[in-house]
Amino acid sequence: MTDETAKPWGGRFDEPTDAFVEAFTASVGFDRRLYREDIAGSIAHARMLADQGVIAADEAETIVGGLEAIRERIEAGEFEWRVDLEDVHMNIEAALTQEVGDVGKKLHTGRSRNDQVATDLRLWLRGQVDAIAGELARLQRGLIEVAEREAETILPGFTHLQSAQPVTFGHHMLAWFEMLHRDHQRLLDARERLNVSPLGVAALAGTTYPVDREATARALGFDGVAANSLDAVSDRDFALEFCSVAAICMTHLSRMAEEMVLWSSAQFDFVDLGDAFCTGSSIMPQKKNPDVPELVRGKTGRVNGHLFALLTLMKSQPLAYNKDNQEDKEPLFDAVDTLAGSLRAFADLVPRMTVKAENMREAARRGYATATDLADYLVRKGVAFRDAHEVVGRAVRHGISTGRDLGEMELTELQQFSDAIGADVFEVLTLEGSVAARDHIGGTAPARVRTAAGEARQRLERLTDG
Amino acid sequence: MTDETAKPWGGRFDEPTDAFVEAFTASVGFDRRLYREDIAGSIAHARMLADQGVIAADEAETIVGGLEAIRERIEAGEFEWRVDLEDVHMNIEAALTQEVGDVGKKLHTGRSRNDQVATDLRLWLRGQVDAIAGELARLQRGLIEVAEREAETILPGFTHLQSAQPVTFGHHMLAWFEMLHRDHQRLLDARERLNVSPLGVAALAGTTYPVDREATARALGFDGVAANSLDAVSDRDFALEFCSVAAICMTHLSRMAEEMVLWSSAQFDFVDLGDAFCTGSSIMPQKKNPDVPELVRGKTGRVNGHLFALLTLMKSQPLAYNKDNQEDKEPLFDAVDTLAGSLRAFADLVPRMTVKAENMREAARRGYATATDLADYLVRKGVAFRDAHEVVGRAVRHGISTGRDLGEMELTELQQFSDAIGADVFEVLTLEGSVAARDHIGGTAPARVRTAAGEARQRLERLTDG
Amino acid sequence: MTDETAKPWGGRFDEPTDAFVEAFTASVGFDRRLYREDIAGSIAHARMLADQGVIAADEAETIVGGLEAIRERIEAGEFEWRVDLEDVHMNIEAALTQEVGDVGKKLHTGRSRNDQVATDLRLWLRGQVDAIAGELARLQRGLIEVAEREAETILPGFTHLQSAQPVTFGHHMLAWFEMLHRDHQRLLDARERLNVSPLGVAALAGTTYPVDREATARALGFDGVAANSLDAVSDRDFALEFCSVAAICMTHLSRMAEEMVLWSSAQFDFVDLGDAFCTGSSIMPQKKNPDVPELVRGKTGRVNGHLFALLTLMKSQPLAYNKDNQEDKEPLFDAVDTLAGSLRAFADLVPRMTVKAENMREAARRGYATATDLADYLVRKGVAFRDAHEVVGRAVRHGISTGRDLGEMELTELQQFSDAIGADVFEVLTLEGSVAARDHIGGTAPARVRTAAGEARQRLERLTDG
Amino acid sequence: MTDETAKPWGGRFDEPTDAFVEAFTASVGFDRRLYREDIAGSIAHARMLADQGVIAADEAETIVGGLEAIRERIEAGEFEWRVDLEDVHMNIEAALTQEVGDVGKKLHTGRSRNDQVATDLRLWLRGQVDAIAGELARLQRGLIEVAEREAETILPGFTHLQSAQPVTFGHHMLAWFEMLHRDHQRLLDARERLNVSPLGVAALAGTTYPVDREATARALGFDGVAANSLDAVSDRDFALEFCSVAAICMTHLSRMAEEMVLWSSAQFDFVDLGDAFCTGSSIMPQKKNPDVPELVRGKTGRVNGHLFALLTLMKSQPLAYNKDNQEDKEPLFDAVDTLAGSLRAFADLVPRMTVKAENMREAARRGYATATDLADYLVRKGVAFRDAHEVVGRAVRHGISTGRDLGEMELTELQQFSDAIGADVFEVLTLEGSVAARDHIGGTAPARVRTAAGEARQRLERLTDG
Repeated sequence: MTDETAKPWGGRFDEPTDAFVEAFTASVGFDRRLYREDIAGSIAHARMLADQGVIAADEAETIVGGLEAIRERIEAGEFEWRVDLEDVHMNIEAALTQEVGDVGKKLHTGRSRNDQVATDLRLWLRGQVDAIAGELARLQRGLIEVAEREAETILPGFTHLQSAQPVTFGHHMLAWFEMLHRDHQRLLDARERLNVSPLGVAALAGTTYPVDREATARALGFDGVAANSLDAVSDRDFALEFCSVAAICMTHLSRMAEEMVLWSSAQFDFVDLGDAFCTGSSIMPQKKNPDVPELVRGKTGRVNGHLFALLTLMKSQPLAYNKDNQEDKEPLFDAVDTLAGSLRAFADLVPRMTVKAENMREAARRGYATATDLADYLVRKGVAFRDAHEVVGRAVRHGISTGRDLGEMELTELQQFSDAIGADVFEVLTLEGSVAARDHIGGTAPARVRTAAGEARQRLERLTDG
Repeated sequence: MTDETAKPWGGRFDEPTDAFVEAFTASVGFDRRLYREDIAGSIAHARMLADQGVIAADEAETIVGGLEAIRERIEAGEFEWRVDLEDVHMNIEAALTQEVGDVGKKLHTGRSRNDQVATDLRLWLRGQVDAIAGELARLQRGLIEVAEREAETILPGFTHLQSAQPVTFGHHMLAWFEMLHRDHQRLLDARERLNVSPLGVAALAGTTYPVDREATARALGFDGVAANSLDAVSDRDFALEFCSVAAICMTHLSRMAEEMVLWSSAQFDFVDLGDAFCTGSSIMPQKKNPDVPELVRGKTGRVNGHLFALLTLMKSQPLAYNKDNQEDKEPLFDAVDTLAGSLRAFADLVPRMTVKAENMREAARRGYATATDLADYLVRKGVAFRDAHEVVGRAVRHGISTGRDLGEMELTELQQFSDAIGADVFEVLTLEGSVAARDHIGGTAPARVRTAAGEARQRLERLTDG
Repeated sequence: MTDETAKPWGGRFDEPTDAFVEAFTASVGFDRRLYREDIAGSIAHARMLADQGVIAADEAETIVGGLEAIRERIEAGEFEWRVDLEDVHMNIEAALTQEVGDVGKKLHTGRSRNDQVATDLRLWLRGQVDAIAGELARLQRGLIEVAEREAETILPGFTHLQSAQPVTFGHHMLAWFEMLHRDHQRLLDARERLNVSPLGVAALAGTTYPVDREATARALGFDGVAANSLDAVSDRDFALEFCSVAAICMTHLSRMAEEMVLWSSAQFDFVDLGDAFCTGSSIMPQKKNPDVPELVRGKTGRVNGHLFALLTLMKSQPLAYNKDNQEDKEPLFDAVDTLAGSLRAFADLVPRMTVKAENMREAARRGYATATDLADYLVRKGVAFRDAHEVVGRAVRHGISTGRDLGEMELTELQQFSDAIGADVFEVLTLEGSVAARDHIGGTAPARVRTAAGEARQRLERLTDG
Repeated sequence: MTDETAKPWGGRFDEPTDAFVEAFTASVGFDRRLYREDIAGSIAHARMLADQGVIAADEAETIVGGLEAIRERIEAGEFEWRVDLEDVHMNIEAALTQEVGDVGKKLHTGRSRNDQVATDLRLWLRGQVDAIAGELARLQRGLIEVAEREAETILPGFTHLQSAQPVTFGHHMLAWFEMLHRDHQRLLDARERLNVSPLGVAALAGTTYPVDREATARALGFDGVAANSLDAVSDRDFALEFCSVAAICMTHLSRMAEEMVLWSSAQFDFVDLGDAFCTGSSIMPQKKNPDVPELVRGKTGRVNGHLFALLTLMKSQPLAYNKDNQEDKEPLFDAVDTLAGSLRAFADLVPRMTVKAENMREAARRGYATATDLADYLVRKGVAFRDAHEVVGRAVRHGISTGRDLGEMELTELQQFSDAIGADVFEVLTLEGSVAARDHIGGTAPARVRTAAGEARQRLERLTDG
């Protein structure tokens, strides 16, 4: 094989590959994104081969030097990627042989593209997971800050999008924090299973060279080595698990987005998202559209779709590596980019939302949000809960027909529905009384919200330290 | 607004858009693919505005000239796409004003980006659907040719991947034809619903200008106009329907792919796919991998994923247009490209498969593939079907324990299981006898296969003519 | 085989099936829902066998009588379904032999469970599709009625959930109609491909008996016969296509649901859904929750999920029938039930919504909904559209800072932003003026809405007649 | 409200619920499966209320006694479930009041159906997760046993379904073990996040009663309490996470299933699955179908579908509880049942597979499986890897054209391709030599497989102990 640009497997074949097929089956258009990890893996592999006596020490250093030069050329934008060389691995290896001569051909000793690509992809994803965890933590910190700042700001809590009970805005922000905190935990759990080295298992069965897999694993920052060669080259659980973690996280972001869109509508008018996060209309001059949350909400589908693409991809594949697996990269890359971008956008946007406390308060005052408080009051006066519920239901119906909230009725009017009601009822019908009374772990009382925010900060620190 | 490059909706805003947000919300990176349709739509709109007296005839022609010049610059690779101008529409409109001066600002009269993008996307998809239908027909024709060529080639038909009954390879190719024929019909049904013009409904409610929507529809080759403005700007059924058609078609291609992979394994060894459609291994010199079918099989997940992305995207969106919808393009684009590429690859590959008729025949001879024929023979001799089934089951068990197929047993041996068996039994136990006997509509008899191939050709012609 | 309850394929086997495996692999728990179609198919098959001389005429009538008796017993709840008999087919056939003796064993001549179950499922789905089309038409008719009734009721049209331009409620109802009309068309397109008979192709290759497939197809109301036996037993496109049609339709229902939930919130307060479609809270006495739309919105996921279950199921299955296909029924059954129930619920609910016209109008008056009208007014006065947009943007910003809508400003105040504004501007700033001005096909002008409603009625009738 | 069977929230309403709507919105048809957990939760809640002085101790004991009596009636099949009482919670509470009188109405003090159902579902899922982990461990142990038994049984390892390199069957079983081990870890990680108590947060904001949430959490075996009330009632991450773990696990089972189906085909003939796990054909007497693996493969789609149902369900839901969430149960229930049943089936089946070692060996002998060994041999003789690959490729091409494997050629014949080949080449071309040479962590050498099996046993024990 005198022509380095020939296919590395050309020996067995009679006909050349058709040009369309070449483009259809090539992956270099997207997998070149892995060049840095591919080179790092090759450097670790070359040095290990030298340490094990498979190649000479100076051969290893020649290879390493060549690879580093190639990396620099790539980063300087001076590397020509070639579709006829199929993928990132062959592009770099062909360039290496051109750079350093025949010794470059020794690099692939004791490995295969199967373990190589699995190594590259794990290294790449590990870096992305760390970046995503960073953005997640930044968003979580922003939520804690808003929670502390707005621990006493009252808005209606909704169920079924109907006003249910008053809550504080800080409390609401901590609900968002909790969702994201589970995402953060899941991401770190996934990272543990991800950070395991397949390098050295070669095509599927291991290799006859005396490879030291633990050495390459250490050199590349892996926590351990994959225990079975067939599994190591065919496993894409790390991509599936990352995408399922990402899909759940995007689901959370879509819920936050939905609320921001609602809250910035004229009908709710609870928050202002800031001009920097909105755009206008080409036709309607008055519009200020909550583009960023809408877009994040829309991007949820994208990540769900990639998860489903990967599940479909892996379904029923016999061991070990099949070409189908080449299709693992684009969904994973886009899931990573989408999640990272969405988190960054929200980490910027959320702490800068302007809270319209008066509008929130006014909405909470309407809507019979303290009806449960009245029922609880009656229970404390000795009425069974189910009967108290019935009493209040009738009082609300009266309120609706006369256009007033419970706190706006006369005492005598309220007493029509139950003689257990006394003058002290009006305290429990205030918004402040209502939220302050929910004073237990997880409750919306402002003092609790402050405590919960402090604990949230500690839990986050423990997680990011660990 | 003296600077044409400023945001078209800047008037209402106080703060500039943040740079990351600008990139995050911009779509020009992918929607510029629609430039040709965007310009075609603008030309039709401008001429209609002139015909309706909204702008002057010479203004329209100035605009048209400017747009055509821009199209040429884009196609020559000399157009600078700008992220700060958000999308393909604004990029082209800004360039138009730069090209032809203030008259360019009149183009957007009586329309909105909401109806504009819906128009562009429908026009683009219509062109793609036609190209895909062409590839589909080419693949279908290839199948008919192979069916006619191999109408007498016998292989085992499988159920549960167990040898079941002999069939002909031509018959098998026509099964593939049928799957794809339904896909073709679905595609044309989808095209009808797709080819409807939203242009002229403006942002959501229609426009106060006297637009002639039927004129622009005709000019753009649409079959009709969308009947409701709110629906016209918010409807993405055409993308959903295309993706579901594509997902079903890819499911068919994955089934064909699975069979090609099986058939080209050493264990089956029924076909040779041709070197042009295979690649080798970087480590294992003997390998010839069926890359193209594997890749097509893997790409199924991709299209399924895009369908799910779009269903998730559209779920629960209130009318009319929301920014979420910007996320409709990338999944649709990639679904189109994936389906088109997969069909093209198979249209090239399938007719060139080398059929290994001897291996197929040998496999059919083993596996008791004519057991049903023996049962049917017994029924013709007066045995009830269920009893005949039981008799043959025992004969097969005897064959397994003595290592012979039914046709290899002595008459007396067979008669142990039923005295209804006579010397004429051996005819029905031949492969040719078995396939020839299945001579009714849809059956595998070679004569039927030839007739069916002829009818398939006619049905395809009727569909592609219609 | 003297024991009718033994497995119909027991002859070849040595060990009994394990009890858990028996339950795990049995389908009678769900496929017995097909009993009516199974019996209809068997009756058609028996009569055809007699007509073709395969069995005697009196044998056929004995079989038919037995089957009818079994159907009666099933409908009377007196039939004992047995898991050890695996599926609906074997349960009925075993009962038949018990009922009419050995002649019952002749029924299965020239067919297989593979073509039998495909026939049953198509017949069943055809009936369900017709019922669903009926509910869909009922809902569509309800929408037309509301559209005519509320052709002049004005509410804000939204984009990005921001008030955009005034529209009429009738116009909005017709947008819903359009979505459903496409669903209706898709359903009927799917029905055509569904209504094709697989009966008579037997296990996979056809049969050696002289079956008349066109006769059984006619007897069962099919429009034609499946053209290829391998395809006929392995094809589940009809389930995939139905589920994709259903998923798109549920997506539409979820969008309608989302709007109903928004509209019945205290913040919008545009409609009242009627107590019959709402439920309350066990703890909060004031709550009236829009349960039915919420539930329909939630059920969207269910149908999407079933579509993906089926796509995953069929992916990469080699021909012909595989046991995997047994998993086709439950997703299909539940998709049918979910869509049918959701349509029925909305067909009941939608026409009974109480429209709160005053609240809608008040919301439209706020929010600068006529800003586009002002821009269009300026264009008519000779200002280029893009410049007019800029002028109005500044006027809106002034309005926001002074707390007034455009129609509430003085003429001189408006003239600050453009001297093209004259006293006639106030006409275009009224809601009635705004909607009436959008008077073209698809526009929201009340007269257009009435015309469109009439056309919608005719289009629906043409579709349901066809 | 004197009639206990009336709706618990009837006070506020004017019209009765329509009968169809009642059935459409009721969940008792499926959520009664939670009765045991609902009662356990109620007992813990009642005792806590008494401990906190909210109700009297004897009231609590009356309630507990009533609940236990109801549980017994349910388990004896003597409980009448009523659709008009909506759900499991209301059915049991209504029965309680009937059983113990008005004191029963006090049970719902300080809680809501929102926290109640979240508690029930988490308790139920925890029990199921533990059962599933048990089946998973049983299957894993079975794999280790087979691995040890078949540590020296050689079969061809495949990539691209082409024979690649020889591996041992024990090694292959350990690849399956690794997949399942990650599933097991994920399941336990999910269990940690699942086992957190929402009880006591009431409807959404907490309650005004002095609830002791840590006490009920302890009583119910939870590891902690949910930190935020809004999140606690709206969070369904546990269902999403379980379903994603289940979907990945089913993907693994589908891959194992695919291999079992392939291996039991006549073409591979590597294993016999045992009659107990197969069924026959109603028409083809010779068939023995691998039903159990086929069915498990098919069931993968079901679980994927449920995951997507739940992701779609949760997408964009504003806080806190919405009725949509009622749709969380059926997908979750069925995902649990499907995974549990599939694992059980495989835990029974896999260790009982009969390995056909001779057939495996024969297949490995063909297919040039030791070609890589020849390349490695050349490298050890000083040839650069890429050149060695080329040499072997040519030798294989020669073998194909002359119909022989590498080990069947003469030394002189081999030396045509490279003069580095000596007489010692034949050692590396044996199957035993090939597998034994892959002797490093993760390699297929029999000694390594035994070591790996031992380590697998220890890792499993550590996991199930922890």
